[in-house]
Amino acid sequence: MDKYILLAQCKDQLNVTAYISSIISNHQSNILHIDHFTEYEKDSSDEGELYLRFEFDKAPDVKEALEAGLHERGITYRLYDSAEKMKIALFVSKEDHAFNELLLRVERGEMPAEIVCVVSNHETNKHFADNLGIPFYHVPSGRDKDIVETEIIEICEKYEVDLIVLAKYMQILTSRLVTRYKNQIINIHHSFLPSFIGANPYKKAWERGVKLVGATSHYVTEDLDEGPIIEQDVIRINHRYNVKDLRKIGRHIESTVLAQAVEYHTEHKVIITEGNKTIVFN
Amino acid sequence: MDKYILLAQCKDQLNVTAYISSIISNHQSNILHIDHFTEYEKDSSDEGELYLRFEFDKAPDVKEALEAGLHERGITYRLYDSAEKMKIALFVSKEDHAFNELLLRVERGEMPAEIVCVVSNHETNKHFADNLGIPFYHVPSGRDKDIVETEIIEICEKYEVDLIVLAKYMQILTSRLVTRYKNQIINIHHSFLPSFIGANPYKKAWERGVKLVGATSHYVTEDLDEGPIIEQDVIRINHRYNVKDLRKIGRHIESTVLAQAVEYHTEHKVIITEGNKTIVFN
Amino acid sequence: MDKYILLAQCKDQLNVTAYISSIISNHQSNILHIDHFTEYEKDSSDEGELYLRFEFDKAPDVKEALEAGLHERGITYRLYDSAEKMKIALFVSKEDHAFNELLLRVERGEMPAEIVCVVSNHETNKHFADNLGIPFYHVPSGRDKDIVETEIIEICEKYEVDLIVLAKYMQILTSRLVTRYKNQIINIHHSFLPSFIGANPYKKAWERGVKLVGATSHYVTEDLDEGPIIEQDVIRINHRYNVKDLRKIGRHIESTVLAQAVEYHTEHKVIITEGNKTIVFN
Amino acid sequence: MDKYILLAQCKDQLNVTAYISSIISNHQSNILHIDHFTEYEKDSSDEGELYLRFEFDKAPDVKEALEAGLHERGITYRLYDSAEKMKIALFVSKEDHAFNELLLRVERGEMPAEIVCVVSNHETNKHFADNLGIPFYHVPSGRDKDIVETEIIEICEKYEVDLIVLAKYMQILTSRLVTRYKNQIINIHHSFLPSFIGANPYKKAWERGVKLVGATSHYVTEDLDEGPIIEQDVIRINHRYNVKDLRKIGRHIESTVLAQAVEYHTEHKVIITEGNKTIVFN
Repeated sequence: MDKYILLAQCKDQLNVTAYISSIISNHQSNILHIDHFTEYEKDSSDEGELYLRFEFDKAPDVKEALEAGLHERGITYRLYDSAEKMKIALFVSKEDHAFNELLLRVERGEMPAEIVCVVSNHETNKHFADNLGIPFYHVPSGRDKDIVETEIIEICEKYEVDLIVLAKYMQILTSRLVTRYKNQIINIHHSFLPSFIGANPYKKAWERGVKLVGATSHYVTEDLDEGPIIEQDVIRINHRYNVKDLRKIGRHIESTVLAQAVEYHTEHKVIITEGNKTIVFN
Repeated sequence: MDKYILLAQCKDQLNVTAYISSIISNHQSNILHIDHFTEYEKDSSDEGELYLRFEFDKAPDVKEALEAGLHERGITYRLYDSAEKMKIALFVSKEDHAFNELLLRVERGEMPAEIVCVVSNHETNKHFADNLGIPFYHVPSGRDKDIVETEIIEICEKYEVDLIVLAKYMQILTSRLVTRYKNQIINIHHSFLPSFIGANPYKKAWERGVKLVGATSHYVTEDLDEGPIIEQDVIRINHRYNVKDLRKIGRHIESTVLAQAVEYHTEHKVIITEGNKTIVFN
Repeated sequence: MDKYILLAQCKDQLNVTAYISSIISNHQSNILHIDHFTEYEKDSSDEGELYLRFEFDKAPDVKEALEAGLHERGITYRLYDSAEKMKIALFVSKEDHAFNELLLRVERGEMPAEIVCVVSNHETNKHFADNLGIPFYHVPSGRDKDIVETEIIEICEKYEVDLIVLAKYMQILTSRLVTRYKNQIINIHHSFLPSFIGANPYKKAWERGVKLVGATSHYVTEDLDEGPIIEQDVIRINHRYNVKDLRKIGRHIESTVLAQAVEYHTEHKVIITEGNKTIVFN
Repeated sequence: MDKYILLAQCKDQLNVTAYISSIISNHQSNILHIDHFTEYEKDSSDEGELYLRFEFDKAPDVKEALEAGLHERGITYRLYDSAEKMKIALFVSKEDHAFNELLLRVERGEMPAEIVCVVSNHETNKHFADNLGIPFYHVPSGRDKDIVETEIIEICEKYEVDLIVLAKYMQILTSRLVTRYKNQIINIHHSFLPSFIGANPYKKAWERGVKLVGATSHYVTEDLDEGPIIEQDVIRINHRYNVKDLRKIGRHIESTVLAQAVEYHTEHKVIITEGNKTIVFN
């Protein structure tokens, strides 16, 4: 059942929803789903920012009419065709857990996406990509970052990539790559942010004696570990878990949190706000 | 910030949302929030049932215009004024846990409700009601059910009760009372339904060796334990929990599940479907 | 760091722990960990059944002395060498999720086990086994059960299998195979048992309108869906999940619950009680 | 069923468990439960610290013999009689949620404790204490800290308090009081530590756009928010929660986390390690 998905945002105005839904209805398209959220600065309804998501049936001319209407009112929007799968470049280093979790979920058809290529600074996980017939690119690190990222951008452009997923890709991206794929790079961080920012979070968690450990999936921005959070989860531990056990259980929670975040993104359910946060219409 | 809340349902039609949102906007009322869900029988968009919830600012004549409009289109609806607190009669027997949890949350102003009276077949919890200045009615059981429920209905009618909450009220209601307050009675059941229906669920759970125990809050219908489920939750246990421990931990999960369900109901977030289920717009 | 693991059970007696720990200590072996649990029938300490797990360093003669001592006192026990990995035959039909989750966790060294062979009534998942160099046996169903299970037992005996894991193997085993591998077959059931026993649990869950769905991993006994539960978990859903969505989310919870149950078993942390339950020393 | 509870710790030695369990058994006392945990510095078994908890039946002379034996071997220990309820002074400011949760659980007999007095810098919650017949002391703040804490210590000494619980007592204690009741003061912190240390954690959580909020119960030390963590939990939120909603949901998680931590402590299940962490034998 093909449909369109609209993500829109604007200053809260009197009749935006009536306006949009009328355009859609007037073109004989049925609205399947609406999400609607207004974020208010200070418990006042005057200064809200409105975020919208519509799913509606394909119908003749509805797309063009809607685009014209949104343009006229100055509403920021993105409009997607649900038949078009999102093209993902999957980045990985040596650890396979988050990589395989996402690869297999996509392969099973669990989200509207396809893995068009795998990029890695190691060859460790090549056989997994090969086994599923997915092109694998070994882009070694330890070289000039500019050369490395030039190669990466060439690969991503060749495959017309919509989304880069860093599934335990243990390299810091430069501003150039982050800017080229703004709001199109998702990372998994091995802690419940903002706890334990930086390296060795499981060791820090063990030393602090926390009773839960977690993982955070976020969009990559130029500020390391500070991008908008898409999804987080935690898992209960106890004193019997040593650092090695925390790393093991961390792999499980990292895998599921990243896959969930990517699923939300590929279903066009995520909007990034001005305030460096996400609206996730799930 | 006073507002109206509309709950509506109808067969899925082409422009219901546009129709409703236009009426609201045309009366200079701002839409603060929309929830929109269509349930399809069989993955087809032809036969859907549409459920809607709108929050919108109070404005002159918007209520009357909307009621006329909904009536004209044959849309089933309820329209609430957020300034009007829901009046709850809280029923309890000897155990105080679910009773106190709800009483205290309401007292703190955590939901738009007030406990207008407490009804009990015991006097055990009278002092809690007295301490907060809430009228307490001792309606002993062990008498003819018809007499008992006549007294109950008189009390509820005196206080113009909108909702009866059975917070571990260990008496089975007759069809008469259930019918009088149709979709207005919420119960807490001490298991993760449909597991362990009937008496002694914690003993049964212990005997089966389950690794999680739960609680279920549901609307009361004439079929015991079969009413529409509003909220459920579970808590992890292990082999060290004996039946007494399960009852203790069960009290905690019962308390929070019931309070959450009542909160949803008082915020007008729950719609009961034709299929004996609930839509909870949370 | 190689060590021994002892699982023992007996009627609760005055000095069993002192007796066992003395034998171990007297042979210069350090006790690394003790788990100790007494299950009482009726809150009385008279009729308890004692369950024990010891981890202790390898030391000369400690194994032989302990075996003699346990034998003398009539204590039921199993004694394992932590250096010996458990040999698993992994059974699967068409769905790959639980299969791949376990395969990859074992491959990463997350539990003391190896997958020695894969058995399937379909060839769908052969390439995953091939890619990791694991022998794959296609044992078609639709034939006489006795012939099928004779082939299965031959394969399992050839590989000296310690544990059979049914990772969505959609065939009912006969009493013959269940008896041959008593307490050595682990299954994943696609519901939070005892809810929704039997076929189509996700459809039943959707129809009942539950707010959480779950999965249960249990030992296989001759009574279908009634074996001792090792692990269960649930995941929150809402009205927006249709039956297809429930199946998708069900795959995730099935995968992690089965893998966790198998991990406990391979670490010799599970004891099955007389009462058809499990003690999991986790 | 009265029993003794032993908490002990020492450098890991060859036969400590055999030694202790033999003393107990030799006095005809049955061991009901053992918890045993060795924490190793660096995955080596050489330098471990051993933590033990025994529950055993009362029997003539067993207490004296055990104390003598532990003393002789230089083992640090505490020995409790399960019949002696722990005496709690409950501290609260204006917010009643964590206070009432603990008060009611203790009143129901859910843990081996009694609230012997309530101390508050406000009179807001006096009526709750009065209603249950518990002495209430109004100790106003805004005065010299030394005077305030002198009054507090006098009250606690009068009631021979074993444990001070800060149930949203919004005053910082001085070193004097913390030292006087070392390892005997439990606090609830309104965030998932170490996230959002300091003031206004719910506002900070909202600004960072986290997807879960939590609470942490810990022993109070002289370093604010840095004491050993006893219990933590989190609850899922979404973009629809504003700061006020986070405070509301925060109250629920604070209440249950504090009550659980106090329950563990009163059951003598918690040992504080050298490394500023806790072992919780639950």
